Amino acid sequence: MKIAVIGAGSWGTALSTVLADNNHDVVLWTRREEQAREINEERSNYKYLPGFTVPESIRATDSFAECVENTHVILLVVPTKAIRETVQRLLPFIGEDTTLIHASKGIEPGTSKRISEMIEEELGDKKVQSIVVLSGPSHAEEVCKRKPTTVTVSSETEEAAERVQELFMNEQFRVYTNHDLIGVEIGGALKNIIALGIGMNDGLGYGDNAKAALMTRGLAEIARLGVKLGANPLTFKGLSGLGDLIVTCTSQHSRNWRAGFKLGTGYELEDVLEEMGMVVEGVRTTKAVHELAKRLQVDMPITEALYDVLFNGKKPPEAAKQLMGRVRKNEEELASLFLGTGDSDRS
Amino acid sequence: MKIAVIGAGSWGTALSTVLADNNHDVVLWTRREEQAREINEERSNYKYLPGFTVPESIRATDSFAECVENTHVILLVVPTKAIRETVQRLLPFIGEDTTLIHASKGIEPGTSKRISEMIEEELGDKKVQSIVVLSGPSHAEEVCKRKPTTVTVSSETEEAAERVQELFMNEQFRVYTNHDLIGVEIGGALKNIIALGIGMNDGLGYGDNAKAALMTRGLAEIARLGVKLGANPLTFKGLSGLGDLIVTCTSQHSRNWRAGFKLGTGYELEDVLEEMGMVVEGVRTTKAVHELAKRLQVDMPITEALYDVLFNGKKPPEAAKQLMGRVRKNEEELASLFLGTGDSDRS
Repeated sequence: MKIAVIGAGSWGTALSTVLADNNHDVVLWTRREEQAREINEERSNYKYLPGFTVPESIRATDSFAECVENTHVILLVVPTKAIRETVQRLLPFIGEDTTLIHASKGIEPGTSKRISEMIEEELGDKKVQSIVVLSGPSHAEEVCKRKPTTVTVSSETEEAAERVQELFMNEQFRVYTNHDLIGVEIGGALKNIIALGIGMNDGLGYGDNAKAALMTRGLAEIARLGVKLGANPLTFKGLSGLGDLIVTCTSQHSRNWRAGFKLGTGYELEDVLEEMGMVVEGVRTTKAVHELAKRLQVDMPITEALYDVLFNGKKPPEAAKQLMGRVRKNEEELASLFLGTGDSDRS
Repeated sequence: MKIAVIGAGSWGTALSTVLADNNHDVVLWTRREEQAREINEERSNYKYLPGFTVPESIRATDSFAECVENTHVILLVVPTKAIRETVQRLLPFIGEDTTLIHASKGIEPGTSKRISEMIEEELGDKKVQSIVVLSGPSHAEEVCKRKPTTVTVSSETEEAAERVQELFMNEQFRVYTNHDLIGVEIGGALKNIIALGIGMNDGLGYGDNAKAALMTRGLAEIARLGVKLGANPLTFKGLSGLGDLIVTCTSQHSRNWRAGFKLGTGYELEDVLEEMGMVVEGVRTTKAVHELAKRLQVDMPITEALYDVLFNGKKPPEAAKQLMGRVRKNEEELASLFLGTGDSDRS
């Protein structure tokens, strides 16, 4: 089956590789002609996946039409800020038999929308068969090495999720379905905030004990907002919640962790972003979630601390100290916060 | 206040340091006269904490009586297998005003008892004021460097837990109370099993994606048994559950992780234990929990796989493959397992 993959960064290339391994005919779109040529002729994608040999059955193109025509399955792997324009470009090519899969992780500043909500808005009256999200603990580098990986797919209907599960599932790449679209998208987006915070903690040299405590609180904070938005609290204990949080916070593959680490060692945000030269989703997500938490009155201390560092000039050591000092006397209070059933008595 | 600490390994020494920093008069017992001399004269504990300078206000002794007489607060930091004999030795020195704190993490093979249950059994008719457990994400090495650390204390009464919270709390060492004694003890003991499994995964070179998935399932497995034993499911999302799991599985400080790593690279169990020369609690805990899970009919795939490696000669690659292959089709099934409400439909 022909599958169109939009976005030839590390994750788009890795997911194309899974699909190619499963004998699908993958056409991978990139904006840059030079990158399409590199993939097709040299079988490499050096900027994003140095050392990786792109399978022969993946064909890259810089022609959007060539990528997306004559297929019913389109996979979007673009930064959150490119979602709307990409869907607009897609409109002439899609219809009621189109399955739109996205593997992006973010929340839109200003609107506080999830990715699938942004897609729906841009589709307007246009109907597609389904919108499916693919998320979970999955560094692209490891997927390309065919290391064992598990992910979650979620959609409003179980059938749509199962169709996508079928496309990607193989021996190394295990795919689970989950009904909770809101929880899966929120977990994937918000773990990037916590990863920035954990990177900062590590950059400050605070150690593994503090890191574990922050990750524990980070998951609680994610779940708190998610439940308020209608997610199933159990989702946050699964692959797309806890699993993705762990992999993003504990591995140096993670861009968000690396950006946070540099902040912790004293770099300014602008310099960090410039030096990395790739999208660091957590930065914009922090802004979006800061707005959302304020509007919904959800207590999100890690997000708040990070927002102050990123956008208000607060120094990382001060922010970190503030976080460790926010002691609640007992853990049941923390736990009740997890379920959003209590929010007081901070000492 | 005089506080007796029994056990001069890395964790006993680290907790003594916290107490000494809080201006308590700490007497630290070790079985070995030579180690007591090293601590008192050279201010070092080289085998367990190389490079660390033991505070002047900690006095070591190899006289059990000298350590435990004239105090109402006794902290046990001995391996699980030494708990019963230690409590027996304590009997002449304790009474209704004694607070017995333990910071050990294990389950007893044969009886499947938690540490506080073992202590109670050995106390028999003898009454003490309270038994309190201290647990949570806390590498001794980092506590000694005064890096930020958070732990949980739990007891049958909140007052007892709060008294112990008061003894240990300081700016770097934050102490939370939690009512759920069962959950705190189970989380602390069982994370060592998962850490062995994760170490094995890392030793096999399976990568961070698989690691995150196994940790996610590991927490579910711990909670499943804990809930069956009467624990509060929320405890496993807290510091002594998720927090301790993270720190033990992701840091090379962890003995259990290190032992698992060596197993993954092909060493035999005996050689691993001999080379480490320290107690690896996870090995005996795996045995105890294997028995318990069988008796209570709780599904614990990671524990089972590890049990087969440790005691039935199964090869680590085979065990790991078996674990990754155990796919459930959707995450809600995984989640329902977390709460022990379903246990079927494995494909």
